[in-house]
Amino acid sequence: MSTRAQRVTAAASERVRVRRQPKKARYDRTTIESVLDRGLFCHLAFVHDGHPFCIPTLHARVGDDVLVHGSTASRTLRALADGADACLTVTVMRGLVLARSAFEHSANYDSVMLLGRFRLVEDPEQRLAGFAAFTNKLIPGRWDEVRQPSRKELKATTILAMGIGEASVKTRSGPPDDDATPDADRDTWAGVVPLLTAFGEPEPSPGLRAGIDLAPSVRRLTEAGA
Amino acid sequence: MSTRAQRVTAAASERVRVRRQPKKARYDRTTIESVLDRGLFCHLAFVHDGHPFCIPTLHARVGDDVLVHGSTASRTLRALADGADACLTVTVMRGLVLARSAFEHSANYDSVMLLGRFRLVEDPEQRLAGFAAFTNKLIPGRWDEVRQPSRKELKATTILAMGIGEASVKTRSGPPDDDATPDADRDTWAGVVPLLTAFGEPEPSPGLRAGIDLAPSVRRLTEAGA
Repeated sequence: MSTRAQRVTAAASERVRVRRQPKKARYDRTTIESVLDRGLFCHLAFVHDGHPFCIPTLHARVGDDVLVHGSTASRTLRALADGADACLTVTVMRGLVLARSAFEHSANYDSVMLLGRFRLVEDPEQRLAGFAAFTNKLIPGRWDEVRQPSRKELKATTILAMGIGEASVKTRSGPPDDDATPDADRDTWAGVVPLLTAFGEPEPSPGLRAGIDLAPSVRRLTEAGA
Repeated sequence: MSTRAQRVTAAASERVRVRRQPKKARYDRTTIESVLDRGLFCHLAFVHDGHPFCIPTLHARVGDDVLVHGSTASRTLRALADGADACLTVTVMRGLVLARSAFEHSANYDSVMLLGRFRLVEDPEQRLAGFAAFTNKLIPGRWDEVRQPSRKELKATTILAMGIGEASVKTRSGPPDDDATPDADRDTWAGVVPLLTAFGEPEPSPGLRAGIDLAPSVRRLTEAGA
């Protein structure tokens, strides 16, 4: 894997400091929030019965917090609500990096890592704002189109928040690193193949009533591309 | 988050058994390998200095093993090579699930979780096969187009393998779960918006020599779509 310079714009705590290829590291709040917001879902690491686990889940940033949610019956959420140490990571892949050598092949990506503990979100207004954030994160503007949570649904849902505190971003951008090496004399194509997330043709639910138009949120999303 | 039935085709170890919404679980080898192979990269969870960490990295499956690699100087890889417990998770998002209520919004996805420990791959032939697997995983057929690793590059690279043993897949497919509920009477569009990975226009490296055609591997990839 190869390196390209990135500016370090703020000091990092020792635990989140990027040690390998420190030029790939960023610690500024704007970059941290940007990666959190661009990624559709996160992976959560935590320890259960002495063993590390890594699970994917949807997340949403609300101000200084990153929220996750799930069933009140979830053992994972209960453990995290009880203050277990956690690591929340969001990774956005942007491209395949093709060099002339196998060794210099890489990927362009942004990955943000947050260390900390979750707290239970209990305030009713904050919980509702959390629900709205999750819904609008999937599809911007969707919250205003749908039925809001009932009392029963709210009761069945745990929302947890982790403050953006100890965090770092690792990022790679740009072309392969072998332009200025003897490998560049080879007859091998080198460059970057961008990776894009695209939306396919919306598939109406089999039970969708006749005569209901595509939702404006979906039309905006699929027309704009990703 | 909502549930749709999935068949459980084999017994699971207690640690990887999916407890929440067990109908979403799969434990058969074909499904496990399919998700490992479809995902471009994985997230690795491990414990360092008592705290869980979650980092993204490229992986490649070779037979019964999942390989990861990195610099011999990487502290993470050293810890994992020393037998630290680890969890390797690959998640493939397939679609946004839009219900009539906020509560039933969800995502269609496949996520495979492997628990275990890594071992150092030391055999020179296996290490070379590992390099080939990483290169061809990024872009099928690329290995035959590029310069193979030098002795120095091989020496600088650690390759670790985890056997596919304790593993489970969690998966969600299909339309939203509220077709047969009173919510279906609402005037709200409901359905699935597929998420696709697309490849953008290949960007030649600034140092690419004149007259070098796009590599056949890249042409195949971008013509086929993802």
